[in-house]
Amino acid sequence: MRDSSLEAIFRPCSIALAGITVANPEHWTRNFLSGLVAFGFDGPIYLVNPRGGEIDGRKVYHRLSDIPQNVDYVISTVPASASPGLMEDCAAKGVKAVHFCTSGFSETGTLEGIRLETRLKELASSTGIRIIGPNCLGIYCPSSRLSFRPDFPGESGTVGLIMQSGGNTVNLIKRTEFRGVRFSKVISYGNAYDLDESDFLEYLTDDHDTCVIGLYIEGVRDGRKFHAAAERAAKQKPLVLLKGGITREGTRTAAGHTGSLAGSREAWEALCRQMNIITVDSVEEMADLLVTLALMPHPGGRRMALLGFGGGSSVLISDHFGKRGLLIPPLPEEIKAQILEYTPIAGNILTNPVDYSQALMNAEYLARTLRILFRWQEVDHVIGFVSLLFNRPLLVQRLRSLNDGMLETARELQEQMAIVAETSIAPEEAELILPFIQKCAGYGFPVYFSFASAAGALDKVLAYNERQSALKH
Amino acid sequence: MRDSSLEAIFRPCSIALAGITVANPEHWTRNFLSGLVAFGFDGPIYLVNPRGGEIDGRKVYHRLSDIPQNVDYVISTVPASASPGLMEDCAAKGVKAVHFCTSGFSETGTLEGIRLETRLKELASSTGIRIIGPNCLGIYCPSSRLSFRPDFPGESGTVGLIMQSGGNTVNLIKRTEFRGVRFSKVISYGNAYDLDESDFLEYLTDDHDTCVIGLYIEGVRDGRKFHAAAERAAKQKPLVLLKGGITREGTRTAAGHTGSLAGSREAWEALCRQMNIITVDSVEEMADLLVTLALMPHPGGRRMALLGFGGGSSVLISDHFGKRGLLIPPLPEEIKAQILEYTPIAGNILTNPVDYSQALMNAEYLARTLRILFRWQEVDHVIGFVSLLFNRPLLVQRLRSLNDGMLETARELQEQMAIVAETSIAPEEAELILPFIQKCAGYGFPVYFSFASAAGALDKVLAYNERQSALKH
Repeated sequence: MRDSSLEAIFRPCSIALAGITVANPEHWTRNFLSGLVAFGFDGPIYLVNPRGGEIDGRKVYHRLSDIPQNVDYVISTVPASASPGLMEDCAAKGVKAVHFCTSGFSETGTLEGIRLETRLKELASSTGIRIIGPNCLGIYCPSSRLSFRPDFPGESGTVGLIMQSGGNTVNLIKRTEFRGVRFSKVISYGNAYDLDESDFLEYLTDDHDTCVIGLYIEGVRDGRKFHAAAERAAKQKPLVLLKGGITREGTRTAAGHTGSLAGSREAWEALCRQMNIITVDSVEEMADLLVTLALMPHPGGRRMALLGFGGGSSVLISDHFGKRGLLIPPLPEEIKAQILEYTPIAGNILTNPVDYSQALMNAEYLARTLRILFRWQEVDHVIGFVSLLFNRPLLVQRLRSLNDGMLETARELQEQMAIVAETSIAPEEAELILPFIQKCAGYGFPVYFSFASAAGALDKVLAYNERQSALKH
Repeated sequence: MRDSSLEAIFRPCSIALAGITVANPEHWTRNFLSGLVAFGFDGPIYLVNPRGGEIDGRKVYHRLSDIPQNVDYVISTVPASASPGLMEDCAAKGVKAVHFCTSGFSETGTLEGIRLETRLKELASSTGIRIIGPNCLGIYCPSSRLSFRPDFPGESGTVGLIMQSGGNTVNLIKRTEFRGVRFSKVISYGNAYDLDESDFLEYLTDDHDTCVIGLYIEGVRDGRKFHAAAERAAKQKPLVLLKGGITREGTRTAAGHTGSLAGSREAWEALCRQMNIITVDSVEEMADLLVTLALMPHPGGRRMALLGFGGGSSVLISDHFGKRGLLIPPLPEEIKAQILEYTPIAGNILTNPVDYSQALMNAEYLARTLRILFRWQEVDHVIGFVSLLFNRPLLVQRLRSLNDGMLETARELQEQMAIVAETSIAPEEAELILPFIQKCAGYGFPVYFSFASAAGALDKVLAYNERQSALKH
């Protein structure tokens, strides 16, 4: 009956925020309230702090027991030392689940921290109240209007995340949001004293809204349970795993972060190979994979037509794609002839990649060339690549050509493409680049920021699919 | 007497721009004029176009021979087919060197292109005029006020670049400028029909202004000559090589770009290992290496103290540094005790990395902790790491703490540190982040944008130094 206890977490009828700061509106404990308000959570939200008072016209109860109505779910920001007392109050109130945000438990390595862990686990077991955490940010589930931050996307999507670090969760959402990824259910689960990665993995495996699952794991306490959960999940949905603590140095840090025993690198690698779990080694790479899997769920084959700007870039993207085993078939003579009808040969390289530098100022030629490439039957994908490292006046022109000649053409043909855009963080240019990327995302075109990351993500997703169909036969 | 002929290129007394477009001020051929004007080139600049006329009050001569004074150096944007004629005019005029920007030679694979290559080489040999290119952007040398673009840094620096691709040259300068890299001499040399990578490498080896050399090479025609030049250069200065065309796919593209024969990957790898040349596989990685070498010319040892924010980030940076063999010694008990004097243990990880999340809002605690880490004798470097993926209001606070608590403290102590900053391209945030990075650069602190790239660049520079001292003994 695991699922039904998780329902109270993902679809609570009422929520209490225990430990919210009354005096300081800038305090981090206020994020949970502003998240729920911004998302328009439609059940009652109760506030609890021993000092009482009022926040934005909402009464602050001194104790949980003072709340006259039922409470399903509690988000706790009380100090670690007060958490066992809160659990007792929750039991008396009939609360179904508590998310403990606060840290200061066994991960500190202190005797007091270890004692608190033991006590919390005992209470979870004796009361039947499920615990998320401690030491984590909890749940972001847009369809239930739950969010631990006000600034996440309001719409739902197909990606589920199970993350042992809150910071990495925020980084990942920030890195993928403007590239078109939206989430079904996101769980930052921290020290995992009760509900752990395996419980959430089982839940997301059966969750129809979730098509792709990203995992950040520092350590697993019950290896057998995780093995079973991962095996079932990996058969049904692509899993992308970022394992923290794969070196001696990282393992030591993970122990201090979430009190995790990291496990050996070799064991994790073997498990992932066996189950066809996609592995990544950074949040950036996880972002690239989620963008690819979310926007390009059926990526077809490995044959790429590349269309871009600049000879040096063409050489380097060829190397990066070649190194990953992506195929770049030479441009057939008849296709070259079609492009040559309106194109001077000097300054353009009419092979594959097509380096059409001159069309960067000419949307019509770009559109014409793209149409020709989309008609080329021997390739599975068309990839555009462009450096946006230009100062504003040039960039304005270039983005206009790219928009009219590339994005609108692909859209009109109802074709998908992917874009590799080398970008600047100079604000004057970012102001132009961000809406361009958001437009790509809106059209369902994955955007990558380097040749290496595009080649890596495409290769890993293709390899996942190749392996998955082999496993099915 | 190679050097003296190159002097006319790097320190010309007078320049003619042959082929500049008169009608269209937006035309790319105008960049050479606007570059020289913006940089305040102090010799005469003559303009040449068969149509004559005037540009910004400057007379446009119909032919080179119409110019009444001497011309040292010609930058040509005439069509490929007109380049032999221009060479003849240059010979009559006593020009010492010509940079042919235009493409359309043998790289197109056409008979006409191959014929033009042969003719240009004959003319170089018979007239003694040195040629840069064709198919390249030529010279950027701030100390001589030469630049092929108006928007490059005006100040000189210690990095020399020898690049077979103009686009990659621009990308690299754009990626390193705001991170504090400045250049001595930059050469975009294209098809290398006369002067080649080896000539420029010899020149920069003897150039006292150049302390580090970056190379982008697609192919080398004279392997023996390059071997000798690289061997001599590598003994004296760090060389960073990005080799284009290391795969079958890249090789084919390089042939179409600069007509290069790329050579085998194994041969290049062996050469670089033998000579202790640092290899990179992207422009981004080259940027990271140049930032490190330019700002941290004497990087000392491998022992790192890491100070940052967030448990998940601490775990991942530990893994990335650990994987590259960088050492993160555990924090000694007495140092931990010093930090604990003013720090609660919950929410902070007092090991190495020091994850001091709470100090991200408290510049004083951050400064105090940084002072303690700089007194720690058992480490060679202090590295700060921070995610800047926050929305504007939070980011303002965070950057203020980082500035006051980290940058100003290190500056005051006259210590160097390096910063890993995960950044956003959202314009509202970029507006705050860019000046922060520029300030780091101004203080001589290298900035990296990911754990992997920081670890990679630091490891490669340290390995270079370790190897170099081993080779000296």
